[in-house]
This record gives sequence, structure tokens and C-alpha cells, in this order.
Amino acid sequence: MKVSVLLGERFKEAPSSCSIESHKLMTRGGYMKYMSNGIYSLFTPAKRMAKKIEAIIREEMDRIDGQEVMFPVVMPATLWEESGRYTAIGAEMARFTDRSGNKMVLGMTHEEAAVHLARNTANSYTQYPFMIYQIQTKFRDEPRARGGLIRVREFTMKDAYSFHTSQEDLEAYYEKCYEAYERIYKRAGAKNVVAVKSDSGMMGGSISHEFMLLTEIGEDTLAICDNCDFRANMEVAACDIVNEAGEISELTKVHTPDTKTIEALEAFFKIDAKKFMKAVVYQRNKDDSYVVIFVRGDLEVNETKLRNYLGEEIHPAAVITEESGIVAGFIGPKGLTENCTVVYDKSLDGINSFVCGANEENYHFTGLNIARDIGDVEYVDVAKIFEGAVCPVCGKPAITIKRGIEVGNIFQLGTKYTKSMEMTYLDKDGEAKHPIMGCYGIGVGRLMASICQESFDNYGPIWPISIAPWQVEVCNLRCTDETVNSTAVKLYEDLKKAGVEVLYDDRDIRPGSMFADADLFGIPVRVVVSPKTCDAGVVEVSLRDKSLRTEFAIDNAAEEIKALVNKLLAEYDI
Amino acid sequence: MKVSVLLGERFKEAPSSCSIESHKLMTRGGYMKYMSNGIYSLFTPAKRMAKKIEAIIREEMDRIDGQEVMFPVVMPATLWEESGRYTAIGAEMARFTDRSGNKMVLGMTHEEAAVHLARNTANSYTQYPFMIYQIQTKFRDEPRARGGLIRVREFTMKDAYSFHTSQEDLEAYYEKCYEAYERIYKRAGAKNVVAVKSDSGMMGGSISHEFMLLTEIGEDTLAICDNCDFRANMEVAACDIVNEAGEISELTKVHTPDTKTIEALEAFFKIDAKKFMKAVVYQRNKDDSYVVIFVRGDLEVNETKLRNYLGEEIHPAAVITEESGIVAGFIGPKGLTENCTVVYDKSLDGINSFVCGANEENYHFTGLNIARDIGDVEYVDVAKIFEGAVCPVCGKPAITIKRGIEVGNIFQLGTKYTKSMEMTYLDKDGEAKHPIMGCYGIGVGRLMASICQESFDNYGPIWPISIAPWQVEVCNLRCTDETVNSTAVKLYEDLKKAGVEVLYDDRDIRPGSMFADADLFGIPVRVVVSPKTCDAGVVEVSLRDKSLRTEFAIDNAAEEIKALVNKLLAEYDI
Repeated sequence: MKVSVLLGERFKEAPSSCSIESHKLMTRGGYMKYMSNGIYSLFTPAKRMAKKIEAIIREEMDRIDGQEVMFPVVMPATLWEESGRYTAIGAEMARFTDRSGNKMVLGMTHEEAAVHLARNTANSYTQYPFMIYQIQTKFRDEPRARGGLIRVREFTMKDAYSFHTSQEDLEAYYEKCYEAYERIYKRAGAKNVVAVKSDSGMMGGSISHEFMLLTEIGEDTLAICDNCDFRANMEVAACDIVNEAGEISELTKVHTPDTKTIEALEAFFKIDAKKFMKAVVYQRNKDDSYVVIFVRGDLEVNETKLRNYLGEEIHPAAVITEESGIVAGFIGPKGLTENCTVVYDKSLDGINSFVCGANEENYHFTGLNIARDIGDVEYVDVAKIFEGAVCPVCGKPAITIKRGIEVGNIFQLGTKYTKSMEMTYLDKDGEAKHPIMGCYGIGVGRLMASICQESFDNYGPIWPISIAPWQVEVCNLRCTDETVNSTAVKLYEDLKKAGVEVLYDDRDIRPGSMFADADLFGIPVRVVVSPKTCDAGVVEVSLRDKSLRTEFAIDNAAEEIKALVNKLLAEYDI
Repeated sequence: MKVSVLLGERFKEAPSSCSIESHKLMTRGGYMKYMSNGIYSLFTPAKRMAKKIEAIIREEMDRIDGQEVMFPVVMPATLWEESGRYTAIGAEMARFTDRSGNKMVLGMTHEEAAVHLARNTANSYTQYPFMIYQIQTKFRDEPRARGGLIRVREFTMKDAYSFHTSQEDLEAYYEKCYEAYERIYKRAGAKNVVAVKSDSGMMGGSISHEFMLLTEIGEDTLAICDNCDFRANMEVAACDIVNEAGEISELTKVHTPDTKTIEALEAFFKIDAKKFMKAVVYQRNKDDSYVVIFVRGDLEVNETKLRNYLGEEIHPAAVITEESGIVAGFIGPKGLTENCTVVYDKSLDGINSFVCGANEENYHFTGLNIARDIGDVEYVDVAKIFEGAVCPVCGKPAITIKRGIEVGNIFQLGTKYTKSMEMTYLDKDGEAKHPIMGCYGIGVGRLMASICQESFDNYGPIWPISIAPWQVEVCNLRCTDETVNSTAVKLYEDLKKAGVEVLYDDRDIRPGSMFADADLFGIPVRVVVSPKTCDAGVVEVSLRDKSLRTEFAIDNAAEEIKALVNKLLAEYDI
């Protein structure tokens, strides 16, 4: 491909709408064009990379016996009514009515379609296990599209669905898929990807993992133990607390005018935040009824864990009405109105004496003892894990908090979909049973942008050769010079003949502009042909990551460059 | 791939909903599954074929310097408002409102997206010409989905858009694309594809061609000259009529009670239909006003030509009201109400004397002479061409009427989109100009089904090896026999190692069932391993199209089969 005819412009200033590096560079480099919130077109360099990532994914899915299929983007609502998700999923699912008045949805995931394809065709246990997958466009009406291809509304995704006759078989396959994912990231050149336990959310099922590419701009927060293998999304990380019991003392009501926050109370009572019982108020989405969570004063509530415990959607209390009987700033467990649900976090367990609100304007209690003053309560784990917390696996206080981008996920779904959608097979003993499912996703565009996010410099992306848009760029620094021109053209043609993917910059522009563009293309191997190199009978060869700078004699340049490309490719050939 | 784990069932009875052979066979063969009207999932065999067809298309598009890009499926309505098509296109475009209240559409074609991607990035004449294309999912809310993958609502399409600085350049590229299409069909094994001139419809522009696969079940009707190169879609075929003038006679009103049809009039007057002036009544969609077309008694009206002449949408008159003054069954040009538009077809030109309605219940005229009795009228071409008609190119009465499936189309769009969407470039002389566009489409699934439709027998599809789901099927007729089994497994493994695509039927089923399934898979090369062949030290090799049946020694079977595959592939390697 010649740069002179390649559609897409490269420029210096990033648009103000781009907040992260990968988005800036992929916009400046002519990879993508914004069409609408979370919706982009891809220029040829990005499309070429997407195809390479897809090819890697396809090979790894085929290696674990995947069968590539194709599900529709547009599906009838009736199919999603079968699973119950037509009503369970909110505004993130796009819906429309077709010309005949039928309700349709745009696929944001394809469990329903997978069961639809497999049911009535996999009727005997002898046909199990099997895995079907597709690489296809999905639409998810994200409320917060951001970061270019990192979080979009329309995206290309590989989604795979496996079907099993036993939990053991699912687990064995889940493990194979886990390993396939590790290979995919390595082959695509993503360096810092770790698998963490995650929340299954709307997918159903219990065990699931997210593959997280660690980066400061990630929107997910991860709890990682420095001492053992424990890694979990903050959303699900258990918070193990070791408390000092302290003395038992008398319950005393204290006048605390205008002392509403933990900070104000710390100053007022001159004791550590850990000695307070903090109240956090939520409301249920369905009826706005109140849920009061008590947690140790230095900790925060983890909404996902709270949501999972309650089994329903909640939101931070918007308004606390007078009728509720909840006295904001002075909430405590004793004498609290019966109009709300009360949740005690595990972090309160084992402490003998708390300072807490007295449910009366301007008053707190000291010396509150839960067992004595409240009674027998259930402690549940709804607190957020924190830096330096105790690891729930090894027990060491070695938790670190990191940020990551989710570049893949795998779920053990169980029979949620096969039961609701009535898919059965006949087992060995002639009994009809529901298959057990797993599902496995990777977003192609997000992976591309994430790799850019971890591999760039001030001038552009540094693409791994396994996914780079082209393997080699030939820069012709003086196309008006006949010798330079014929040398560059011959090299371009020879490399193409040798099966090397070449971008050829044939434009009559200043070397500075050509190199700036080359940096934005991020192609691993750069070859410069100039009057100076031609005089010396060589071409200049360097790597985009600056790890090599050398010269090859013109006569065997194509051969040497091909050997260099093969050497670089071999690093990703695992 | 082993048949034992391949998802998808094959069965004998075609569902009653399948009316054409390709739909029956692709349903019975486990290629596709119905999900909703015009919406299907594809099983692995069909997905494999789709990928091969896509690869052929991609190679041919790249060969004519196409740049593969990716447009979104979901687009903002604002983009389609720019071109005017948001309102111009009716119910076939799916629309929805996103969570933020923005109007969105599902792409049914991507001219708007192509202009959006290219504008502001191709600002100088030096960057032209260029062509961008994608292979992507589209949704078109067809009122009459039918024939399985032949006419669906959701489909995978290659759509390409070229941009030029002159009409000559567009025409030269159009010609290259025409040739690329011919190569695509040949390589994919479609045998009877012809290009015909067509109506540009909603695409705009003037010159366009459809590539038609000739088959009796085609929904398009084509006029093809047996004497010259003329080929056109019936919709646009000019109808050249050579009339005998006949005698001039007196205008006479005749009582013709209850004689309303041409057949009845032929019997009543005992003269040929050609001597009558037939009236056909349409209504305009916008206000239901009447349009009366007069055409020679033996001919029909071509609605597309009429629509293009009027420049608006029309439909056959549903009701003829009394107020309209139109007397159904007795309509004629003389004394016709002025409340309707009158159109005279060219077929009436040059005839001196007609029988026609008198605009009075139960009366006709004889001897009507248009010039004398009506005056100076404009004759326009709105009649349907017919078998044996005069070719508008060579003038010979050699027109034959055939049916075809449209498997591709190419359009010269002109500046319809670049003007309305304000895309310009600076020309050599520094003047801002609108680029001239062409667009080029091929439906992947429709091509697959069309090829099936022209290549099958009573037992299943006969796939060309260039697109077949696998190249070779190995049938193990006795998997319980150790020698047979090890021979079959070894052959399967050896062929895979040699890079041959093999489907291996490893099931313990009756030979009859295995062969019935093999016929439905339609794989070109079939290899049978049985106790009998093993005793003879051979495997049996035959072609699906029955053109070969032979034996290869077990020892070099893999080698010989690979050579056979290569020989078959070479036929499509043009």
C-alpha cells in the first residue's frame, strides 16, 4: 500500500475530546473517525489490525475445538422474553419495532441465540461437549462511552458458548478457554494482562473471570495480593477485617452539635475512625425504600456486593425524607425507624464499643455494644477492599489496588439459559437434562486500543508486529531523485513478492513530516532510502521501539528485512 | 472436523416453509436455522463457505486497489438527513431512538458513511481516485423475505465506494470493478451470471448494472437479446414497437354492453388485441390522484418505467370513485375527465385507427384516430418488453425473457451524495469540486444460496471446491473395525497435515445414512474407507458431481487426494 493513496489523515494536535493517549494517537494517526457517541468508522490501518487480532482469536478458538457460526445482530424480542432478559435488561439494550409491528432487539450478547441454534440439534449426550463462537458486531447502548475504542456502543466481539453434560466437564473446558485467552493476549502483544475473579452481573452464573490489562487509565479497580495468587475485581473482592475488640463501656448519649461527618467526629471525640460506626443510605430502585448500611468508620460500601446481597438494584439515597424517620448525619442502629432495611457489614464484628449516631438531631452515642444494645445481628460482607487490606486467601495484609481495562471475560453460566429456554438432551440413562453452559468474550477493538494504551511513546503507537497494520514501512526520502526512487520502488516490490506486508511512503514531502507520520503508523520495522544511503549502497533499518538501528546493503536488503520480520514474528509465535 | 461433534442436524423432509431447492437443501443439510422472518443463524458449514466467498471478494477488491475499512451498523439519523434519505426511504429502514433520545438507523447501505469517512480527509485532487470497501452486516426490513438466504432482512454484504475527479475516471474504474465482479463469480463457481442494465432506484445516479444469476426461481425478469449483447432488467428495458398504420376510418360510437376486458372486446369485435387502446389506471401514493395510461391492447404497463417518468411513487388504482368521472371498463382518451393525468405509451404511435372506451357505461368507439380526435399528444415508453419484442439495440425481434437472482450490482452515483453532504476537494486549478462516486455491492449469503440453486441434485448441494465448506470428506464405514478405523484416522490426520480441509465422518451409523449426510454436505471429494476397501488395500474416491469414481492405494492416498484437490482448485484459479 502506498501512503499517497491511503485514505485517512494524520495530524499533530489531538482533538480536545480525546482524554487518553490511545484515543489521541489513534485519532491523530488516521485509524478511526468519530461518527456518533460511542460509534466510529475504522480506516484501513485499524481494520487491518482488527483482522489480525480476529485471526489470532479464531486460531485459538479453533485449537480448543470451537465451531465458528454466525448469529444475527437483530433478534426478535420473543427470544429474549424466553430467557427473561427482555425485561431484566434496561436501556443498554437497543430495541425497535419492525415494519410488521414485531418487537426486535440489537444483540449485545448472544446466549439466547446460542441456545436457539443448539437446542433441538444437540439432543443426545454423545454430541457433548461442544463450543460455538462467532466474531460479529454488537451494540450496547452504553451510558458512558469513552476513551475512543476502549468503551464504545458498537463493537466487534468474539463471543463463544460451550455446552456440557456435567459441571466437571464445564470446569475442565473453562480451564482450557482460560489458557486460550492467555495465549491470545500474548500473541497479540498485550503485556500486562491478568485474570481476576469477577462479578457475573447480568450474565447469571457464579464463577467468572475478567482478563484485565493493567493501566492507570483503566476504569475497573482490582485488588491484587502481593503475597499470593489472589486477584479480584474490587466489585467482588471479599473484605477480611481483623478487629481489635477494645473495652466494653457504658452507652452514653453525647451532645454533638453539627457534627455530621466521620472527619468532624474524629476531631470532636479525638479517636480513630475505626472506632466509629458509619451509616450509608441507599434506596431500592423499585420503590425508593431505604436501606441503611452500617460499616466501620474508615471503610466504604461496595455497591456491587451490596446489590448482590440484596438481590436487587439500588442507588445512593437521593433525598432522605422527614417521614422516613432517618436523621441524616446522626444515624445509628439503636432506635432507628423500622421503615428501612438495616445491613451490618462484617467490619463491625468483634468490636465492643462504637461511637455512632443516636437517631436524634445533634446527638451521638458512645459505648454502643451491638450484642448488648441491639441484639443478635447478621454480619454481611459489603465493604470495599482497600490498599493494605488482609488478603482473603493468604491472610497477609498484602492487598494492593490497581486499575485495569477489561479485555476479555469468561463465565460459568450453569443452566440459567438452557432451563429458561427449555433446551434438553437425553443423558446416558435416557433422562432429559439441561446442558450446562459457559460463555467467553473478547472485544476486538478494545483489545487493539488497550495494546496501544500500554505501548506508545510521545510520537505514536508502538504496535507489536503480530497485529501491526503493516510489518515494514519503506520511507522514500527523495522521490524526485531517480536512484533513490528506483531503489525504494524495487525494495517495495521485492518485499511484497517475498510476502512481507509493506507500507510505502512515496510522497514528495519533507523528511520530518514523513517520520512524524511513520511514528503515528507505529509500524515495527522502518526502512529509510535517501540520497545518502544510496550513495553508501545501503538502506537504513530501525525498529519503532528503538531497540535496533542498522544498515543493510541494498543488494540483499529485502532478504535481510524479511529475516528480521520473521525473527520479530517468532517472538509472538507461542 | 469430525461429524460426531459438528453442531447441526441433517434430515430428510424439507419443512413446508421452504419453497425453493436451495432453501430446502440448506435447511435439511444443517447450514442455517430460522430465527425470525428473514433472519437466520448460520451453522459452521455455511459460515465456512461465507468466509471463503468473503476471501475471494476481498482479494478481488484489493486487486483493484480497494482499501478495506469498517463502517458502523448503527448510524445517527442526522447523517441520513444530510443526504435526504432519512425521509426518502420508507419502512425498509429500521429506526430506533437511543437511551439519550437520539434517532438512530440500521445501515442498509453505506453511501452516507463512506462520504462521512472520506470527507475532510481527501481534500486534494492528488489523493484521487480511491476506493474503500467493507464486508459487514446490514439490515433491510424487507416486506417479502423469502427463499432462505436469497432474500433476507439481515445479511452480510461487501459494499464498496469509489471517489473520482472526473466522469471518465469513474467510468474507467467502473469497468475495472465490472471485471472484478466477473472474476468473483467465476472463482466462486457461479456459472450462469450475466450483467444487465438496471434501474438505480433509491441509490440515485444514472448508469448501473445488476449481475444476475439466471434461474427459473429468480424474482427479477430480464430481457435478453439473442442476436446482440443487449441485456436489461425488464424494469428498465426500452420497448421498441413497430406498428402497422392501418386504414383511417370514421369515429363511431358502438353499444358494447358488459364488454369490459380486452378478451371480451376481441370476441365482440372479432379483431386482434393490437387494434385496441387499453387503459390502465394508477393512483399517486401522495394524494391518491388518478393516472390513466393508454397502451396497445396486447401490452402491459411497466410500473418502474412509469414511476421513473412521473418521478413519484404510484400504485395500481385500488378503487375508482364515481366522482373521478372514470368509467371503469369503458375508459378512452376522448372526453375523459380532466381530473386525471393521461399518459400515452409509445406503442400507440403510428396506428391510424383504434377501438377504445367511450367514457360512457356500455359504449366503445371504433375508428379513433389520436391526431384527429384527440390532438397532439406526447408518447412515452412505459410498456413492458415481451418475448419476441424488437431489441432496442440491434433492432431484431430477438428478445427473450428470462428470470434471475441479483447477486451483485454496480452503480455510477455521480455527485448525489458528495453534493448533498458537502464533500469537496481542491482541484488542480485550486477550485473546490464535489467528487464523483461509484458504489458496488455483493451479498455474501445470497451468492452462496444462488450457487446452491444452480448446482444441486436430488440429494443435496454440489458445492464448487472454491467455496465448499470442506474440500474432502472421509467416510469411515465401520468405525468398530480396528483396521478400518486406524486407516481412516490416519488418512484424516495425514490430509490435515498436508493442508487439505477435511470433514471426517467418524460416526457408528449405517452407510446409507452416512452417504445421505455426505450428499447434503455437498463436499467435492468423497473418500470411503470400509472393510472391503481395506482388504483391497485401497480407498474409494469419488466426486460429488459424479464426474469421477476411482480408487487410490492406501499408502499414497493422502498424496493422491491432495493432488486431486489441487487439480480441482486450479479450475477456479483465474
